[in-house]
Amino acid sequence: MDMVDTFETITCELAGPVATVTLNRPDVRNAMSHRMIDELLRCFTMLREPAHAGVRAVVLRAAGTVFCAGGDLRDLSDTASSPEAASEATARTDELLRAVNTAPQVVIARVQGPAVGGGLGLVCVSDLAIAAERARFAFNEVRLGLVPSVISPYVVARIGFTHARRLMLTGVRIGAAEAREIGLVHDACLDDDLDELVDAAVRDVLQCGPQALRSCKALLFHVAAAPPADTLTYRVDLLNRLRASDEAGQGMLAFLQKRPAPWIPQTEDAHE
Amino acid sequence: MDMVDTFETITCELAGPVATVTLNRPDVRNAMSHRMIDELLRCFTMLREPAHAGVRAVVLRAAGTVFCAGGDLRDLSDTASSPEAASEATARTDELLRAVNTAPQVVIARVQGPAVGGGLGLVCVSDLAIAAERARFAFNEVRLGLVPSVISPYVVARIGFTHARRLMLTGVRIGAAEAREIGLVHDACLDDDLDELVDAAVRDVLQCGPQALRSCKALLFHVAAAPPADTLTYRVDLLNRLRASDEAGQGMLAFLQKRPAPWIPQTEDAHE
Amino acid sequence: MDMVDTFETITCELAGPVATVTLNRPDVRNAMSHRMIDELLRCFTMLREPAHAGVRAVVLRAAGTVFCAGGDLRDLSDTASSPEAASEATARTDELLRAVNTAPQVVIARVQGPAVGGGLGLVCVSDLAIAAERARFAFNEVRLGLVPSVISPYVVARIGFTHARRLMLTGVRIGAAEAREIGLVHDACLDDDLDELVDAAVRDVLQCGPQALRSCKALLFHVAAAPPADTLTYRVDLLNRLRASDEAGQGMLAFLQKRPAPWIPQTEDAHE
Repeated sequence: MDMVDTFETITCELAGPVATVTLNRPDVRNAMSHRMIDELLRCFTMLREPAHAGVRAVVLRAAGTVFCAGGDLRDLSDTASSPEAASEATARTDELLRAVNTAPQVVIARVQGPAVGGGLGLVCVSDLAIAAERARFAFNEVRLGLVPSVISPYVVARIGFTHARRLMLTGVRIGAAEAREIGLVHDACLDDDLDELVDAAVRDVLQCGPQALRSCKALLFHVAAAPPADTLTYRVDLLNRLRASDEAGQGMLAFLQKRPAPWIPQTEDAHE
Repeated sequence: MDMVDTFETITCELAGPVATVTLNRPDVRNAMSHRMIDELLRCFTMLREPAHAGVRAVVLRAAGTVFCAGGDLRDLSDTASSPEAASEATARTDELLRAVNTAPQVVIARVQGPAVGGGLGLVCVSDLAIAAERARFAFNEVRLGLVPSVISPYVVARIGFTHARRLMLTGVRIGAAEAREIGLVHDACLDDDLDELVDAAVRDVLQCGPQALRSCKALLFHVAAAPPADTLTYRVDLLNRLRASDEAGQGMLAFLQKRPAPWIPQTEDAHE
Repeated sequence: MDMVDTFETITCELAGPVATVTLNRPDVRNAMSHRMIDELLRCFTMLREPAHAGVRAVVLRAAGTVFCAGGDLRDLSDTASSPEAASEATARTDELLRAVNTAPQVVIARVQGPAVGGGLGLVCVSDLAIAAERARFAFNEVRLGLVPSVISPYVVARIGFTHARRLMLTGVRIGAAEAREIGLVHDACLDDDLDELVDAAVRDVLQCGPQALRSCKALLFHVAAAPPADTLTYRVDLLNRLRASDEAGQGMLAFLQKRPAPWIPQTEDAHE
């Protein structure tokens, strides 16, 4: 395992095709300080670089019992005197959410406890989120006289307008089961089963062609933003290009010969 | 309690931060006559005025055992001879739906019985809808040779294209549990529990900062209509403005001091 | 029953207001060859013609135990040498999906077994899909180094971005119950109950005014593509036009007189 250890508030471990990013301020319930936002953004930017093209899955997790308590109020008071600094911090949070949302890897959120504010935003931009029983979710901003401003578009995209309006306008707290029902997370499980489910999700991702995954993620954002007729050429060309690729050639051959594709790790615990 | 008593087909009671609007033609199953549409529109327009800025929640309910049987067929025959009058009535229904949808308050629909046609439209534009066992929902227009024309965009926005196409193209009737599953309502309960759940929803809303609620509702419509990049400035500025406000200052202080925010009513039955 | 028998890979039977289209290559698990795509497109194009204006429902089903195994790999290797031919085939699949999606009839998918690739695309563009226990669904393209390129916009429209990103980026297989939960299908049932549920759905459709159904389907696509204000005139005019029609006149009269509308088939097994 390779530790990328230049961070203070998070950790990022690389193990072959899997990166594990951990929010690592358990003593303050992983409150997102400006520094944490900067480091997360730096981490996901780094994972976009050609040097890390081999990384196919990112597990986004948190140390301790809370996933993320939201923005760090200490930073908030620091920027209160300067609207410019506050604006910049808000814009950087948005940049982080976009970076995670469109990461070339498949981002799997492992939600072991409460997620609030910006931390809840991170859950909303993951490709696959799994929540344990102890997880709790609330858009409690309105209860403080604030609004979930930065994360709001990602919330609406995640759970739809109908559920967003209820949750954002009441600040009520929901559990893992209800979060699953409305699509905030994809799966809910017993606390003890969380790691097993996350491992299974990672294994699912590693069954998939690396180039195909990156293309598929880009495809999703492309087709979601336009009517089908506008994306036809893109879709046709993408399929043509992939079909002619070595990866797809190997994948289809393996499929026909009923043997594992070459990109599937041989060992069971591929990411450790 | 303050009764706004200039209406014939509805009632509107004001009790501090809570308005209760009641469809009040139980003898004709609350059929939406032109007069009822006009009065509802007048009521929600009134609630937008500065004089009612203190109203934070609107409970939308109906007298009798039926929530709303849809358009009043008597009016329909009156306007049948005049396409202009019919067009105007249809457009006014759309205006009503928009007024409720974008009301500055949090609108809570209390659905105690069947909701059809325009009445179902009202459910679709509420922020939070709770249905009792006796509730029924059907887009039965196609069974009469008509279509749910006016309400259709609000239906698609509420339950999504997938469920809208099934329900609108078959006219099948669904119950409260299925309505909850597809997001038509947010909660379903036993008939006897309806008032308790509505009261709890009102209490949830009253926990929230008045200015924050209004801003949050506007935010929802803003971000739902555009890609995230287009709304970044709006989101950043809104958050800055709220953070600098007295309301948020008091809210955050109360939060840190673990005491109730100043806008939370002291009495248990705040809206009665 | 009237067999339209000029097809090789599918069958199309007409019985009054109901057409039954059957994928009919059970020996190759109904793999969608170029010929099958062409014939399906020809069939749905034919059903658009004035001669078939009386057809109100289309049951889309498959022979054998598999609904559709996806594209025919034999064809794929034929077109591999020619990007032009491959592009044309892909575009024709998209044309087919659009034709089914916007068919003037109500399209009911009867999913008795696994549906993959383009076959899964057909499920996504049906108005009403019912899946039996034996049904399975997977976007397994990424596991072969490919992507579900052609069907992707219809998938996102069907199940939303949140579920699409999970399923398309993992290739996991889900059953009928989970497919129902995420809206991929509308109902899930025991294998033995499938025909009963499909028959009931057909009967529901035949309760509806023929002209109203066609108008309602067009309305759905119209309002889904624009904000409410932009479609107001369309909605107002459509309702005016329908109200003044003979069909609606008869439908409303029948409703008031509590007798069946004239378009409802008299016999119980109307479509056989």
